[in-house]
Amino acid sequence: MGKGLHIVLGQVASVLGDIKKNASSLLSLSEKTEADLIIFPELFLTGYHPRDLLTKRSFLENLNETLFFIESHIKTPVLFGTPILEEENLFNGALYLGKGKKKTFKKLKLPFYNVFDENRYFMTPKNTSLDDMILEINGFRLIVSICEDLWSNAGVFPSHYEHEPLALWKKIESPHALVNLSASPYAKGHFHERKNLLLSVSKTLSCPIVYANTLGLNEEILFDGASMLVSKESSIQYLAKAFEEERLSFFLKEDKTLSICSQEKKKGANHHENEEDRLLKALVFGIKAFFSQNGFKKAVVGLSGGMDSSLVAVLASLALGKENVLPIMLPSPYSSSGSISHSLKLAENLGLQTREFSITKHFQHFSEALSQSLPRNSLKLLTEENMQARIRGLVLMAISSEENALVINCSNKSEYAVGYSTLYGDMVGACSPIGDLYKTDVYALAKFINQEKEIIPSVILEKEPSAELSPNQKDSDTLPPYDVLDAILRQAIEEAKSKKEIAHILNLETSLVEDVFKRIKQSEFKRFQAAPIFRVSPLSFGFGRRISLSTRYDDLAF
Amino acid sequence: MGKGLHIVLGQVASVLGDIKKNASSLLSLSEKTEADLIIFPELFLTGYHPRDLLTKRSFLENLNETLFFIESHIKTPVLFGTPILEEENLFNGALYLGKGKKKTFKKLKLPFYNVFDENRYFMTPKNTSLDDMILEINGFRLIVSICEDLWSNAGVFPSHYEHEPLALWKKIESPHALVNLSASPYAKGHFHERKNLLLSVSKTLSCPIVYANTLGLNEEILFDGASMLVSKESSIQYLAKAFEEERLSFFLKEDKTLSICSQEKKKGANHHENEEDRLLKALVFGIKAFFSQNGFKKAVVGLSGGMDSSLVAVLASLALGKENVLPIMLPSPYSSSGSISHSLKLAENLGLQTREFSITKHFQHFSEALSQSLPRNSLKLLTEENMQARIRGLVLMAISSEENALVINCSNKSEYAVGYSTLYGDMVGACSPIGDLYKTDVYALAKFINQEKEIIPSVILEKEPSAELSPNQKDSDTLPPYDVLDAILRQAIEEAKSKKEIAHILNLETSLVEDVFKRIKQSEFKRFQAAPIFRVSPLSFGFGRRISLSTRYDDLAF
Repeated sequence: MGKGLHIVLGQVASVLGDIKKNASSLLSLSEKTEADLIIFPELFLTGYHPRDLLTKRSFLENLNETLFFIESHIKTPVLFGTPILEEENLFNGALYLGKGKKKTFKKLKLPFYNVFDENRYFMTPKNTSLDDMILEINGFRLIVSICEDLWSNAGVFPSHYEHEPLALWKKIESPHALVNLSASPYAKGHFHERKNLLLSVSKTLSCPIVYANTLGLNEEILFDGASMLVSKESSIQYLAKAFEEERLSFFLKEDKTLSICSQEKKKGANHHENEEDRLLKALVFGIKAFFSQNGFKKAVVGLSGGMDSSLVAVLASLALGKENVLPIMLPSPYSSSGSISHSLKLAENLGLQTREFSITKHFQHFSEALSQSLPRNSLKLLTEENMQARIRGLVLMAISSEENALVINCSNKSEYAVGYSTLYGDMVGACSPIGDLYKTDVYALAKFINQEKEIIPSVILEKEPSAELSPNQKDSDTLPPYDVLDAILRQAIEEAKSKKEIAHILNLETSLVEDVFKRIKQSEFKRFQAAPIFRVSPLSFGFGRRISLSTRYDDLAF
Repeated sequence: MGKGLHIVLGQVASVLGDIKKNASSLLSLSEKTEADLIIFPELFLTGYHPRDLLTKRSFLENLNETLFFIESHIKTPVLFGTPILEEENLFNGALYLGKGKKKTFKKLKLPFYNVFDENRYFMTPKNTSLDDMILEINGFRLIVSICEDLWSNAGVFPSHYEHEPLALWKKIESPHALVNLSASPYAKGHFHERKNLLLSVSKTLSCPIVYANTLGLNEEILFDGASMLVSKESSIQYLAKAFEEERLSFFLKEDKTLSICSQEKKKGANHHENEEDRLLKALVFGIKAFFSQNGFKKAVVGLSGGMDSSLVAVLASLALGKENVLPIMLPSPYSSSGSISHSLKLAENLGLQTREFSITKHFQHFSEALSQSLPRNSLKLLTEENMQARIRGLVLMAISSEENALVINCSNKSEYAVGYSTLYGDMVGACSPIGDLYKTDVYALAKFINQEKEIIPSVILEKEPSAELSPNQKDSDTLPPYDVLDAILRQAIEEAKSKKEIAHILNLETSLVEDVFKRIKQSEFKRFQAAPIFRVSPLSFGFGRRISLSTRYDDLAF
């Protein structure tokens, strides 16, 4: 056992569904690496996870062929996440391929809440022995586990789980380490839960933990990597970068100590990242991944001079480079002068070339032609407001088509929640990077970005939010102040509290809370057609929140 | 036992999530009805099913309170579908409340494929005895089962099911009948599967079946009702109306014969409906339900003079009444004269008042202004095409806002599949009634509608399909002929066949199939933002087809 077990942890993004490509990155790392074991995260071979592709026979056949291919070509031993098809049963598993040795491991707890739907695809093993969980390699005994196996009592209905792995692991005699292959999504604050969980499990088992987490974007879901090594004394010995690829090389010694190879030691300096750091990284990574997955380099952003589009312009510049961001100013008769001047200042700070396209004439033409077609010869205010937003949407989409660029949407979570947005208008876009940030979160992130140097002009942070769709309009004409609104929304959405409870908790008039609930429900149809929203909170609008348009229920508005 | 057991089957729509309203229709029917037993379908109390509301504690508390209330107020004995919360475990169950008697039944098989996701919410009972499945009432022994319990080997991974109820039922000694509370969605052809299944189970058990199916619309999913009584000789003795409420009253006799009360006998004349009948009913019901759920009466339909919008105008007229359908003609410079004249003929046939709004001027203004803003002083053809579609979308939305009406989308499944549509353009709309019909299905339904009398002008059925977005444009300039395209799409989507398989099955050039696959994948982002599509096929774009925008896999394009 000498120097110990040399392990390399591959925090490498895999391509969702592209089994062959993922197999080839696995094989190429195995070829280049001298180690006793290379570890890849959960479902690395398919990416986490390709949803209904997992129900298609030919996909599973393809998978099995690829597994054969890997088996016959592997150089350095590997342990990687992959679906495992045994007869008619599909498991979320891990496969070890060593010199002449092969062992499969099966996930014992399949999460089925929020963005998780693993029990739509996978089974859990019927009978499982302690031996089934152990990987013996060069005299070392590693417990192999997969993501949710670690998490006790997680999810909405924890009692649905048949197995409680921690209880089983406790019976295993002196393991050298617990290995966990994960696909744990990013959400604000989730890193701390994860860390505390790892520390507590390590303490319970008195052994180190090798935690290999997925890196990537699956539609709306961000995986941050941030793999960890936990020492046998239950402290974080190494934290890999969040939202970056990393190959971490270390030795697990006979006495269960971990020794990190010098090169990487220096990198492990990101322990002190705060939540805003992580959030910023998450959104920038998301944009970058979304564009690369869809084969685009350039982005169109409609700049209003307001907070949301300013933040999106910053994020897009960080993700795509300033040469690839095309900010468009689209003034209407109701735009303030600041709409242009503040946008220009922001663009100057970011080094962006703006374009201006006035919608005034087009708006007037439409208004005239439409009102002439009506008996009453005039349009409702709401029609006029939405029309402006839709003309802007149309122009942005036309420019995106001309420039071979994607429009990035600038809606925030407060707007999505109460429907303070125009479907096919300001809701257009290929992706919605700040759609899971409440307005107050948007301000907080902007302040964080401005910490060292003013990037977003302070006047934008200071002025009162306005949609500028009618004369002297302010958001506060229609909505409660954002600090109040967002507090209600957090209670309603993330905490699923009832109207009464919220009025009580926040000490507000029930009628105010009722009005917000009504807005949340009435705008469900808009969210149905929204762009994919990057998930950065525990409950984002989208895949992890399943509520039917037909639902009629008054007491909750999550 | 005398005359036998008097049963009333309530094929009544419940309101999704509105527990109190559903409880009150249940109680009111129980008050008005003299019978030994009233039966309601699966999850009647919550509607089938309210998705993530089922994960919220306060919703479940509300449910339990309502169950108490029903228990203390019920007059005639009832058996109805409801979630059942026992300690921390939620079951999809049935509750019998009789005179002083109470019994719960639990669903043994929870489907988790296609639009089904019951194992996200419910558990199956750990140990189940034959007794647990029997309802004894007035000396009659009824087996109580819930939907999927009937279906052997259904779903993608049938081996995931722990229980096989049919095997258990066979052990039950001489039951008088099997009762099944269902929420079986409508899909073309599914009625026959359902019928054949019922006949086969009845044969196996040598007993009659009382099949109570859900009626309603859940977002995109249509439930057709069409409840059935199967005789002990395994023939359909009564078939309730599809897509209509019905209260069916009958006697189950000691000798297992069923005697239907005279009033309803006459109604049972819809055995001979064909698939087109059912499809037409489904779409009309869907529109009606969608508008009523969302509190709207009036619809805006953009009429192009083409097949799709003509069919939608017919469906909307049937569903909402001609006085509530507002067809808008939106000619552009590239519109044929038929675009207007054919639309006017259709409107005349339907008795609809049309409006015309030319988009030519607006299109020219945008084209000029946009091309001036570009270095090359001209727009791409694609930009111009999409711009026309988006101007139309904008006008339709403005009129809908003025008229307090919903826009009905006219896209078909072939268009959604290959992305032959403009996001925020012709894709706008509150719901998409023909979005699960391939273009060839659209023609077939139109011909069926015209069977007795020409409603859709024959010239519309005969002319070549064209988007009319550029001079002399035909769909066939871009796409294969629709009969070929739709054949490929059916194989790719419903059958999940690979490129090679399809080329072989249909005897086509691989390159043609490859091109269609590419289009399917490249238009995933459009479908992500599509309006809710009424599901009428086994695999509709929407809730039942889960594929991530990030997926990269070449061999399948379902």
